[in-house]
Amino acid sequence: MIEGVALDAYGTLFDVYSVEQKCEELYPGFGQRISQTWRQKQLEYSWLRTLMGRYENFWHVTEDALRYTLAELGLAADADNIETLMKSYLKLEMYPEVPQALEAFGSRKKVILTNGDLGMIEPLMNRTGLNEHLDGCLSADETGMFKVRPEVYQLAIDRMGIEKSHILFVSSNGWDVAGAKAFGFTVGWVNRRGLPPEELGVRADYEVTNLLELALAIEEER
Amino acid sequence: MIEGVALDAYGTLFDVYSVEQKCEELYPGFGQRISQTWRQKQLEYSWLRTLMGRYENFWHVTEDALRYTLAELGLAADADNIETLMKSYLKLEMYPEVPQALEAFGSRKKVILTNGDLGMIEPLMNRTGLNEHLDGCLSADETGMFKVRPEVYQLAIDRMGIEKSHILFVSSNGWDVAGAKAFGFTVGWVNRRGLPPEELGVRADYEVTNLLELALAIEEER
Repeated sequence: MIEGVALDAYGTLFDVYSVEQKCEELYPGFGQRISQTWRQKQLEYSWLRTLMGRYENFWHVTEDALRYTLAELGLAADADNIETLMKSYLKLEMYPEVPQALEAFGSRKKVILTNGDLGMIEPLMNRTGLNEHLDGCLSADETGMFKVRPEVYQLAIDRMGIEKSHILFVSSNGWDVAGAKAFGFTVGWVNRRGLPPEELGVRADYEVTNLLELALAIEEER
Repeated sequence: MIEGVALDAYGTLFDVYSVEQKCEELYPGFGQRISQTWRQKQLEYSWLRTLMGRYENFWHVTEDALRYTLAELGLAADADNIETLMKSYLKLEMYPEVPQALEAFGSRKKVILTNGDLGMIEPLMNRTGLNEHLDGCLSADETGMFKVRPEVYQLAIDRMGIEKSHILFVSSNGWDVAGAKAFGFTVGWVNRRGLPPEELGVRADYEVTNLLELALAIEEER
């Protein structure tokens, strides 16, 4: 039934909150707040820019989000600090179960489908060795839009040549889960933070707490 | 130069956080967190539904956002409480300077341009008497999309018959300010909460702390 797997990257394979320590080092006492607001604004800007029809790539959006975050918290947006924190986005920690889980998905085609442009996602894949477990990386950047636009999800179908309900889309982000399910994928929600589902009129097909659990559930159904 | 004024409603004319007291009554200790998460989720859902192409009106989105909020905070979504809190959205407090400010804009055409559907905005206008100061209310509901889509801002041009740079669009919401400026309006930001500007590549033409201040600035330039 499931012939291919398309995986979100940020939050799903890589921990976007692993920048917190570096934030705390540079701005003592503010690590957690910077990390959380930064992520929130990064997402907001991706949605708003897509709605406005004023696309800039995810690296650009991520830096804009960081600048806003520092301003909102009343912190100095020192150029060196900005550069250091942006570089930390190229060194996000991978969730520990990811390589084993990717193997457990077996011989199915596996791709990343991410908002990140290749310039920011490829360093992560090389650094963690994930590229060896995957058949490629599809970036929203090709469409000039971000998720949850259908054009972005369509990339997976075009590249894998698999009918959409036979593609398992995997994300830890509730909004991404909703977008992918509305698009028509079979969807697995890796609910790492134990959040309730987003109230957007659709539900994930699978809800798990980590990626390996999902891979094993899919294998069991074969 | 400015021939017409289009005003956002929620956050700009009416205080969306004025529901906090009712939230606190029903869920002691959680008033502020409910009020803030509810607003955040209401906006997120408006953006995400527009991106997904799965429009539901703002009333529906507002109730969905409330349900999510209660679930996230681990609070019971009792049907009576939901009804009470939704009704409080029809009784939001108006910011005190609004009627005087609208008069200070003089004989220019003045309309509301809101995400709210007429069923939820008209009770507020009637209750506060604002309808007497305005030439009408345009709702995003007509377009089946929410701000910051250009189609929504276009409503003001179509209805007022004024060229867009001669329309002053007014909002307290930074994201709405960015959307309206990207669209091409002259934009006044009523920065009620003293926030930094959103980093979306555009800036408001005017930044003020309340609506009367803006009306006086515009009058002075005549």
